[in-house]
Amino acid sequence: MRVAVFRKAHFNAAHRVHNDTWTAAKNEEIFGKCNNVNYHGHNYELIVKVTGEVDPDTGYVIDLGILAGIIKRQVEDRFDHKNLNLDTEEFANTIPSTENFAVVIYNLLRVQLPERLDLQIRLYETPRNFVEYPA
Amino acid sequence: MRVAVFRKAHFNAAHRVHNDTWTAAKNEEIFGKCNNVNYHGHNYELIVKVTGEVDPDTGYVIDLGILAGIIKRQVEDRFDHKNLNLDTEEFANTIPSTENFAVVIYNLLRVQLPERLDLQIRLYETPRNFVEYPA
Amino acid sequence: MRVAVFRKAHFNAAHRVHNDTWTAAKNEEIFGKCNNVNYHGHNYELIVKVTGEVDPDTGYVIDLGILAGIIKRQVEDRFDHKNLNLDTEEFANTIPSTENFAVVIYNLLRVQLPERLDLQIRLYETPRNFVEYPA
Amino acid sequence: MRVAVFRKAHFNAAHRVHNDTWTAAKNEEIFGKCNNVNYHGHNYELIVKVTGEVDPDTGYVIDLGILAGIIKRQVEDRFDHKNLNLDTEEFANTIPSTENFAVVIYNLLRVQLPERLDLQIRLYETPRNFVEYPA
Amino acid sequence: MRVAVFRKAHFNAAHRVHNDTWTAAKNEEIFGKCNNVNYHGHNYELIVKVTGEVDPDTGYVIDLGILAGIIKRQVEDRFDHKNLNLDTEEFANTIPSTENFAVVIYNLLRVQLPERLDLQIRLYETPRNFVEYPA
Amino acid sequence: MRVAVFRKAHFNAAHRVHNDTWTAAKNEEIFGKCNNVNYHGHNYELIVKVTGEVDPDTGYVIDLGILAGIIKRQVEDRFDHKNLNLDTEEFANTIPSTENFAVVIYNLLRVQLPERLDLQIRLYETPRNFVEYPA
Repeated sequence: MRVAVFRKAHFNAAHRVHNDTWTAAKNEEIFGKCNNVNYHGHNYELIVKVTGEVDPDTGYVIDLGILAGIIKRQVEDRFDHKNLNLDTEEFANTIPSTENFAVVIYNLLRVQLPERLDLQIRLYETPRNFVEYPA
Repeated sequence: MRVAVFRKAHFNAAHRVHNDTWTAAKNEEIFGKCNNVNYHGHNYELIVKVTGEVDPDTGYVIDLGILAGIIKRQVEDRFDHKNLNLDTEEFANTIPSTENFAVVIYNLLRVQLPERLDLQIRLYETPRNFVEYPA
Repeated sequence: MRVAVFRKAHFNAAHRVHNDTWTAAKNEEIFGKCNNVNYHGHNYELIVKVTGEVDPDTGYVIDLGILAGIIKRQVEDRFDHKNLNLDTEEFANTIPSTENFAVVIYNLLRVQLPERLDLQIRLYETPRNFVEYPA
Repeated sequence: MRVAVFRKAHFNAAHRVHNDTWTAAKNEEIFGKCNNVNYHGHNYELIVKVTGEVDPDTGYVIDLGILAGIIKRQVEDRFDHKNLNLDTEEFANTIPSTENFAVVIYNLLRVQLPERLDLQIRLYETPRNFVEYPA
Repeated sequence: MRVAVFRKAHFNAAHRVHNDTWTAAKNEEIFGKCNNVNYHGHNYELIVKVTGEVDPDTGYVIDLGILAGIIKRQVEDRFDHKNLNLDTEEFANTIPSTENFAVVIYNLLRVQLPERLDLQIRLYETPRNFVEYPA
Repeated sequence: MRVAVFRKAHFNAAHRVHNDTWTAAKNEEIFGKCNNVNYHGHNYELIVKVTGEVDPDTGYVIDLGILAGIIKRQVEDRFDHKNLNLDTEEFANTIPSTENFAVVIYNLLRVQLPERLDLQIRLYETPRNFVEYPA
């Protein structure tokens, strides 16, 4: 009896989509206003999906309070009210696109979860733009 | 040409997450405030997903009015404004976690749908906590 | 320069709409399924509106972190995962309708706020039913 | 590193669910008020899901500005503020059910996207009724 | 102790914004795509606000079940799945703008409510465009 | 017959809540993580409310397409994907709190609207924190 459970979280951050190996002109051409040198920002909404067998003793796949704590320590405390480009080591050499951000969050959560549980991340950059990983 | 159609429904109920085979202390330790002896409650949001071939005569996988009627009879009439632990036979011997509740709803709907249609349930306990079955 | 600031909070609770001075039959007739003897429950959404002058030193009417703390102590800690009828002194002699609940919450918050600030409460019992106090 | 990216769009249209090969009585019987001879209408919400490898130079699966432009030209400009039955060639011989509409939109977008990208459509006719294609 | 209670309802309809006393060219110039001769449509969301004293016997300003029934008979049964211009007498000589529609709905509800209760209507034509009456 | 019409818009920006006349320590103490020296950011949701008489020729208080154009030129083009502290003259000497931001937006829109129309702004910094001006 495999069930998927979902937990929603929220944080906000500044960023700039920028490729260090390109000229300013090429960054401007490809990334447009998302490349603004002084940064812009978003309210990120995160949905964490964990799939596994239901424990007959608790009726839970995973205690959502425990999952919420992992999300807080691994994601919210690290990225909330931060500048992704300047304040985090995860994006020192990685473009903070929503795609890359979802992969980073996946990896940060994956190591904290037992192997028997599958993990998928949905990350909203805005209510109209969002991504899922793994696809 | 397989298409998935979704129908959203709403009901509310009281419950208590409790394992009868455990001591009060262990229930309190594991389930915390969800174990409150006098119950608490939720506005449940249910999304029913039905997948199948589109009927060329109607353009429908299933008439959503018919599906809404099945959901009303099997789910809303049974659980709306009820205490899951005290008022329903489905949870007489089952912990009313969201995981178990989704499986119960799946089984109640599955028997009312033709075999050619696939079924999946998403159940929101709160806007931040929800489950899907089958995963 | 008077501005209104709003803070949203969330909690859930069980309740039963019941008038102790009426017969069971009259309670059933007037309140219908909301009178279920074993209780039902809701995810309550609360929006607290505080109106006042903007402090030129901070740009704030009130620090929303401070307001969130007041809401947590006065409302969430008191009512979250509780049975309003059985677990709270506020509804020992008051029907826990959404109207009465909004007035109770208003009074609990009013005493914690400076007099120079105006207060209004919006309380959602469900996404389709909600109230405001004062009107 | 395959990631799915999603873009949300909005348009509104009138339609009538009607099978030309049936009598008026049979259309009325099967489709009910959705068959109203003078049409009714909806605010359609469209979510386009595109799945592929992340480009290491941009951090993007696809530039969402480019995807938004494709959706505008292929879907919004064609269907927004239109009568699906009378104003569009796509529904000259096809019943404008949500199922068929999702397939039509899929085909209009599919031809504009590189083959290396997978495509899925979610179309909301109302907040309570929606479909996905492919299932 | 005056409290405002709110009830949300939903229906959909087709319409065309058109002034019969103008030429086709002027209608097109002023109303643009909203003037499409074959109609377009919307999912209307309606929020009905009723303000009054709380009845100490029930804890209610008005029983929301009764209010929902009035909204169903006066608004949903009249306008749901209808063409406002062709199927309703209310818009025989009135342009079905959202502003005029809100006033029409207000008048239809006002006559069904006791004079001691105040009434206000909020009507969403789309999630981004909505009106309130009285202002 | 006065009616209020509302139009919703969206943009995102980076900012830092900071008082230049205070020490770094006092800024940190009062503003906490909102004072992060490298900025953070938000998806701002803006609701513009315009109140006036309905024009009997159009059924409109104001053409919402015209209002949307004013919002785009005065607000979105100015603030979208910008750093409020560094990229805008409006916040050169003003703390970019949500309260001050709402007043700035009000003033930018007020000068573009005829005097016969009243104006009010609601600005969401996050789904849980928002302000209205005038109160």
